[in-house]
Amino acid sequence: MERIDDLQCHGYRIIQNPDWFCFGMDAVLLSEYARSFVNASTPVMDLCTGSGVIPLLLAGKTDAVELHGMEIQPEISDMARRSVALNDLTDRITIETGDLRAYRETGYNAHFKVVTVNPPYMKSGLYNASDRKSIARHEVLCTLEDVMAAASYLLKSNGRLFMVHRPERLADIVTLGRKYHLEPKRMRFVHPYIGSSANMVLLEAVKGGGVQLTVEKPLIVYRERQMFSDEIREIYGFSR
Amino acid sequence: MERIDDLQCHGYRIIQNPDWFCFGMDAVLLSEYARSFVNASTPVMDLCTGSGVIPLLLAGKTDAVELHGMEIQPEISDMARRSVALNDLTDRITIETGDLRAYRETGYNAHFKVVTVNPPYMKSGLYNASDRKSIARHEVLCTLEDVMAAASYLLKSNGRLFMVHRPERLADIVTLGRKYHLEPKRMRFVHPYIGSSANMVLLEAVKGGGVQLTVEKPLIVYRERQMFSDEIREIYGFSR
Repeated sequence: MERIDDLQCHGYRIIQNPDWFCFGMDAVLLSEYARSFVNASTPVMDLCTGSGVIPLLLAGKTDAVELHGMEIQPEISDMARRSVALNDLTDRITIETGDLRAYRETGYNAHFKVVTVNPPYMKSGLYNASDRKSIARHEVLCTLEDVMAAASYLLKSNGRLFMVHRPERLADIVTLGRKYHLEPKRMRFVHPYIGSSANMVLLEAVKGGGVQLTVEKPLIVYRERQMFSDEIREIYGFSR
Repeated sequence: MERIDDLQCHGYRIIQNPDWFCFGMDAVLLSEYARSFVNASTPVMDLCTGSGVIPLLLAGKTDAVELHGMEIQPEISDMARRSVALNDLTDRITIETGDLRAYRETGYNAHFKVVTVNPPYMKSGLYNASDRKSIARHEVLCTLEDVMAAASYLLKSNGRLFMVHRPERLADIVTLGRKYHLEPKRMRFVHPYIGSSANMVLLEAVKGGGVQLTVEKPLIVYRERQMFSDEIREIYGFSR
């Protein structure tokens, strides 16, 4: 059943269907990681856009005028398109129904300065390949390699890929990135607590970039049990 | 000019020549990262051993009985050998003068359960190729790829490589590791302060291992200016 949620960003709202997927902190952190590289002269493509949460957040956080989201599942891209209309953003956000594996047919070769993606995290495991929730979470309809290949095709030279993923896949991300000339430049690990292993990684890679990686300060989510850290509170705007 | 320093470990001492190189926190953290995988039935090879600091620390921290260190520069391996003798450890530590690029001639194919290495960090830059300090810091006499190839040859199947390096080289470490079947299993980033980028990475890779990486809690060196964190104090034994 669909519902309309407050995006907690610029007064925007988002239509979501909890039976399929709802956006989480990963989407919020990814948009935050990319925002300072996005402005009115930055065409952005969000792959695996789902409900369109990343383009919506970037519309709220930046003055971007050309935001695209690509989603393979027609019911979900339709829902994203309705969210865009709901916020009067049809002049800034275009939701495209399409398969990123067919990137050569998009007509967007080397068009984008920024590609963002919050891809399915799970490589394998038990899932129902026709289930929308599984498609969002598992590499059913696109693999990490498909994402890298598409991002590399869509980006201009020196364009930037911003990705959020699981640290377990870091070696895959780096080796596949190199295969498609997407060199990691900046990485930030997200730890639930200062004393726990990372459960997310934020990554910036540059198409055709040289070898020079910075592993930034850790992003700690909770200061203590149930209490967000100052940085997370600021990202979510709780301190305003 | 040589000097004898307290290793601050088991009462051991180490001969160092500050004109060449002195061990730093990276060596201490590497030995700490590897120690729980080393015992009396674990043959260990330390590549680029320099003054022998890693075998000496592992001799102090574990009950290993077969520790090897390989060093290419004869004057430095001679110094390491004298440190071993100084601590009466000749029955547990063997320092070999040799070029790790000639690993096939060592007679140690798949002999070791653990390989440790604190390799030269710098890929390029201005250096004097005959200067001992440059050889310890720059990839003059061995590249990261040479290290990976040698480690892979020396390790048994499922044997573990422990490495300390700079985060800037992480993408190289991961891609070259995969090339030589050394899959990263565990990584820990070392940050001078909670709010600063990482300046070291500790890595455990398994020969022939599957894809499953944990990025552990960050290791923070200083709690505040000039004051070590509790974890560093514990590693150095300051709290004892």
